[in-house]
Amino acid sequence: MATNSKSNLSEKDGVLQPETTSKTSAEKIKLNRRKKIDTKEFVAKILDGDITFLSRAITLVESTNKRHQQKANEILNACLPYANKSIRIGITGVPGVGKSTFIESFGKHLTSIGKKVAVLAVDPSSSVNRGSILGDKTRMEQLVVDKDAFIRPSPSGTSLGGVAQKTRESIILCEAAGFDTIIIETVGVGQSETAVHSMVDFFLLLKLSGAGDELQGIKRGIIEMADAIVINKADGDNVKNAKIAKVEFNRALHLYPPKENGWQPKVLTASALKNSGIDAIYEMILSYIDSARTSGYFEKRRNNQNKHWLFSTIEQELKRRFYDNTDVNDQLKKEIHELNNGKTTPFFSADKLLKLLNKS
Amino acid sequence: MATNSKSNLSEKDGVLQPETTSKTSAEKIKLNRRKKIDTKEFVAKILDGDITFLSRAITLVESTNKRHQQKANEILNACLPYANKSIRIGITGVPGVGKSTFIESFGKHLTSIGKKVAVLAVDPSSSVNRGSILGDKTRMEQLVVDKDAFIRPSPSGTSLGGVAQKTRESIILCEAAGFDTIIIETVGVGQSETAVHSMVDFFLLLKLSGAGDELQGIKRGIIEMADAIVINKADGDNVKNAKIAKVEFNRALHLYPPKENGWQPKVLTASALKNSGIDAIYEMILSYIDSARTSGYFEKRRNNQNKHWLFSTIEQELKRRFYDNTDVNDQLKKEIHELNNGKTTPFFSADKLLKLLNKS
Repeated sequence: MATNSKSNLSEKDGVLQPETTSKTSAEKIKLNRRKKIDTKEFVAKILDGDITFLSRAITLVESTNKRHQQKANEILNACLPYANKSIRIGITGVPGVGKSTFIESFGKHLTSIGKKVAVLAVDPSSSVNRGSILGDKTRMEQLVVDKDAFIRPSPSGTSLGGVAQKTRESIILCEAAGFDTIIIETVGVGQSETAVHSMVDFFLLLKLSGAGDELQGIKRGIIEMADAIVINKADGDNVKNAKIAKVEFNRALHLYPPKENGWQPKVLTASALKNSGIDAIYEMILSYIDSARTSGYFEKRRNNQNKHWLFSTIEQELKRRFYDNTDVNDQLKKEIHELNNGKTTPFFSADKLLKLLNKS
Repeated sequence: MATNSKSNLSEKDGVLQPETTSKTSAEKIKLNRRKKIDTKEFVAKILDGDITFLSRAITLVESTNKRHQQKANEILNACLPYANKSIRIGITGVPGVGKSTFIESFGKHLTSIGKKVAVLAVDPSSSVNRGSILGDKTRMEQLVVDKDAFIRPSPSGTSLGGVAQKTRESIILCEAAGFDTIIIETVGVGQSETAVHSMVDFFLLLKLSGAGDELQGIKRGIIEMADAIVINKADGDNVKNAKIAKVEFNRALHLYPPKENGWQPKVLTASALKNSGIDAIYEMILSYIDSARTSGYFEKRRNNQNKHWLFSTIEQELKRRFYDNTDVNDQLKKEIHELNNGKTTPFFSADKLLKLLNKS
């Protein structure tokens, strides 16, 4: 407008020219260009070890927004050729066993010998209480400021499968960012140990020594999965108890036949607080990895894990489609009622429900 | 014809009348009538405890012929209201542990106190080598001639799921025929113990005492399922070893937390050959059943088993439909190859394959 013009040379408003390209097309081109640059930049930054971009990429992986997921997939695809080159260690143990202190002590040992450590978590409960594991980073105050360490709380999710998928994808990003040791922490909730066991090369169970009740309350199946048991807090008055516990756990482990690769799970004692026994644990893991690599078991286990995740993803989706079907869902309740009253068999009911799915 | 007629009263051949109903309709009516009578008769005979008809009905259940299956389903449906009234006991143990001798001794004890005993088996390997379990009935020569006992080898089948389904349906028929104690035998092949565990009220593991290696070679997970361990062949020179084994197994069982219903699994010794310890085993099972019935756990476990079989039947069928799809099957091989070469993730591949299913 010419209201505050001090010159007579001010122009009159011209006629608006029609656009040569439609607005939406232009937007699309812009968006597309930006997206392409961003993905490339993202990947370059990640490959360069940039923690900020790694974090942002993981946030995209964890997002439920369709466009974020699309972008996350592009980044994952670009990072894939640079992944797969780390040692993945799973760590589990009940609350109070000292997982955070142990991981801090273990992680600091690793970075002190030149390793780059990423710590992720699988905690299905964090969908309710986001970040219950690793959420309180102050518990790892030394590791969190270590430039060679990266700590990321558990993704949130409605199902263990969803949480585990996101963590698995984050592993790829961390590996592409140059982290050579990935620690996956989980608290013993439901099937989360099984999920973690099937994404790591080595699975470690943390335990405490107590007053003779060491062997009580071990969750079914956990001992079978453990490649090693570490009795933590073996310091001060606890040293003697820890040694007794070690004998008992060794006996317990001998109840099971050796693992597929011939490995006999080990029992070690450690004090994360006093930093004792930590180096021996890492040595043990390395000797395991070395022999697994030589025998070809390392690659075999990873390939089997990939197949496991492929099949379980497919089967979860098939089930979701079935049980989310409204007709099926309504009839299912009726069938279970009939079953409990002895009026049908599981096989009759299954047949009926599957026919319903075909119809709809 | 009148060729050998001695009378003039012989008739001339008449004209063939057109049929008032079509041949196929008549056949259908006949078939239907016969089928109805047969099913009714079958069921009446089964409810009357007729072993011959029970056997024939089980043969129908096991048949892969569509019409036999249809008939089997009719019989099962009619028998359902009379089923569900027995104690179901699962028995497992490796070959050589003396399962046949034990079941004979245990079964004879049961019939001697007025019980009616059916012995079934779940043995997936019998699809190759039909009747490998219980096939040699001469090994139970006393029980096989006992009028209160019914022995049936494992059905054959291509999959454990199929074999287990047929056995579960046979249980219904045996119960309808008045058998109040059903014994399901399985040899430790693959997942067969799990299948049997999920169709019985009480799961018993047979073991031998040896020279200090009792605890070696126990298959992962079996101890967790056992409601009791019986150390068999505790006779002669073996008595001492059996007692030592009992102590060790008790220790092993204490590694696990008590079961959902609070039951602490028991260890007993027995000699099936000398008939010693057999009555104590049955007493233990009865006391378990009594307390489970009182607490409501008995019904709860059966309801859960029904739900388990419903869901697992559905999910097996969903998977079968997916993996039997030709397009999916072809692409799956390619995806696994790509996975092993780190060129895709399990989640990308799953997505691709599921989209293929939608298309076809």
